Amino acid sequence: MRNTVELQQILEDAIQNLKFPENPKQLYEPITYIINLGGKRIRPLLVLMATELFGEDANKSIHAAMAVEVFHNFTLVHDDIMDNAPLRRGKATVHEKWSTNIAILSGDVMMVEANKNLAKVNTIFLKDVLDTFNTTAQGVCEGQTLDMEFESRDNVTIDEYINMIRLKTAVLIGGALKLGAIIANASEKDAELIYDFGENIGIAFQLQDDILDVYADPEKFGKQVGGDIIANKKTFLLLKALELADEEKLNTLQLWIASDDFDTKEKVEVVTNIYNSLNIPDIAKQAMEAYLNKALDYMNQIDVEESAKETILSLTMNLMARQY
Amino acid sequence: MRNTVELQQILEDAIQNLKFPENPKQLYEPITYIINLGGKRIRPLLVLMATELFGEDANKSIHAAMAVEVFHNFTLVHDDIMDNAPLRRGKATVHEKWSTNIAILSGDVMMVEANKNLAKVNTIFLKDVLDTFNTTAQGVCEGQTLDMEFESRDNVTIDEYINMIRLKTAVLIGGALKLGAIIANASEKDAELIYDFGENIGIAFQLQDDILDVYADPEKFGKQVGGDIIANKKTFLLLKALELADEEKLNTLQLWIASDDFDTKEKVEVVTNIYNSLNIPDIAKQAMEAYLNKALDYMNQIDVEESAKETILSLTMNLMARQY
Repeated sequence: MRNTVELQQILEDAIQNLKFPENPKQLYEPITYIINLGGKRIRPLLVLMATELFGEDANKSIHAAMAVEVFHNFTLVHDDIMDNAPLRRGKATVHEKWSTNIAILSGDVMMVEANKNLAKVNTIFLKDVLDTFNTTAQGVCEGQTLDMEFESRDNVTIDEYINMIRLKTAVLIGGALKLGAIIANASEKDAELIYDFGENIGIAFQLQDDILDVYADPEKFGKQVGGDIIANKKTFLLLKALELADEEKLNTLQLWIASDDFDTKEKVEVVTNIYNSLNIPDIAKQAMEAYLNKALDYMNQIDVEESAKETILSLTMNLMARQY
Repeated sequence: MRNTVELQQILEDAIQNLKFPENPKQLYEPITYIINLGGKRIRPLLVLMATELFGEDANKSIHAAMAVEVFHNFTLVHDDIMDNAPLRRGKATVHEKWSTNIAILSGDVMMVEANKNLAKVNTIFLKDVLDTFNTTAQGVCEGQTLDMEFESRDNVTIDEYINMIRLKTAVLIGGALKLGAIIANASEKDAELIYDFGENIGIAFQLQDDILDVYADPEKFGKQVGGDIIANKKTFLLLKALELADEEKLNTLQLWIASDDFDTKEKVEVVTNIYNSLNIPDIAKQAMEAYLNKALDYMNQIDVEESAKETILSLTMNLMARQY
């Protein structure tokens, strides 16, 4: 069984070997551009790890891993259009560097490229692989729709929020693992268990992102601490604070949310203080840990040697332990 | 073997039975909306016809037909964003009725829905079906990119134009037929021949559209005659005229192209007169007929009873005979 570094090497080689047609340049250059912006490649790595977890060679699921990575990058390109984002990993987004139309079309053709990679999977598993991939892709589209919808709603519940992040980010973590399991010919039960592990880990990751956005070490955090507060992003922290605040704190929160002319540092400070006074960081950590424990519980039920689980567990634990 | 009306009935039933999730409403309502705007359903009909041509029951390819129809509607939704089109079949386009973001996302999820339909195809044919569908989808994206690119170029050649319309519209006609053939277990050679028939017919259709846009009977034509001339659309007619015009006519054409303040009726009249003086309608008809004959030549080589070819041939001949 390969370790993480070996799997990352297989992955990086495959990514560098992804070939797209030369022309039309405008259509294909953005694909290479966005994929080469980097990132941790967690999702395709999980595909490979799941295949090895169930005793098969990771090379068997490399095409599925590529499909997941290309699909993920497609969602970034289209999401950046919708979010009007100028930057992605410190570089110009595709719609900024080229145009919105090119970003739409390049995204579309990336979805096709993802499907082309998927079609290279061993035909024995093809039907299952397609069903899992399509369900996942559909969930991601639904999650992005809900995320946009929430921006214009002021009655979003915590349950709705959890469902949104489940769809927007967690189903792809679960789906990636399940694809790797299917290609390793895992039992249907184990494939579902690894999916459930991934979905719950994915929710825990996002809750941790919400916490770090406010409480990360500013020296180490890649972006501005408090960015979500400044943008009134309806995170777990804000929704929980709105739920728990007394009248006075609720008024203060709502004043800051409604204001469009403010000192960003002051807003972050006031809102963070309200979060602290309501014990929001602890509540959020407890919620995160509940999903983490649920995930571990699913992993426990998977019918393979405990030692085989270590690669996936140590990767996920490292990600959960990040402080920035 | 079923006739056209029977196949249309199977198709209409299947379209009415297409089920999408209820929520998020904003994501799924546009799909039902755009699909129910109607249209001639030529592409999915060709899938069914090709299956029957090769001696199988059209019901076997109904899911592939749905995939093609949903995919086609996805391209309409995204193309309408890029073209800033307010209307589609006399009704508001999806991005006008909802928003650009919703149109992007609904389009994306339609691509997933198309793939979900495709995954229902008999697994024996699944790999071939996916490869054909993905190649087709990729071609359509390339065609749309070229079409956009041509808008800002003034040196588009006739060959480039033919390649663009081949990709943008003809490969989906060919792909639809090939999908139907694959599912009927046609030989590889016959599947390629029916594809080539479709691709050439598709180019002929588009050339006919170019001609009709200028020369259709205004009483019967669904849209404004001369629309392409008014919009300076680089059709076969305009490109050929630019190629053949002497200096005087070239200057006149270029003056009208450059002008952004003009009487539309006068522009259409002047440009049409130049077309006529250069014999453009005949040249365009000859080009169209050359593709039509090439298509028929491919059809001739297909190894089935001549009588079995009649349904597809009469449909395509009816479409070619339309005067508006």
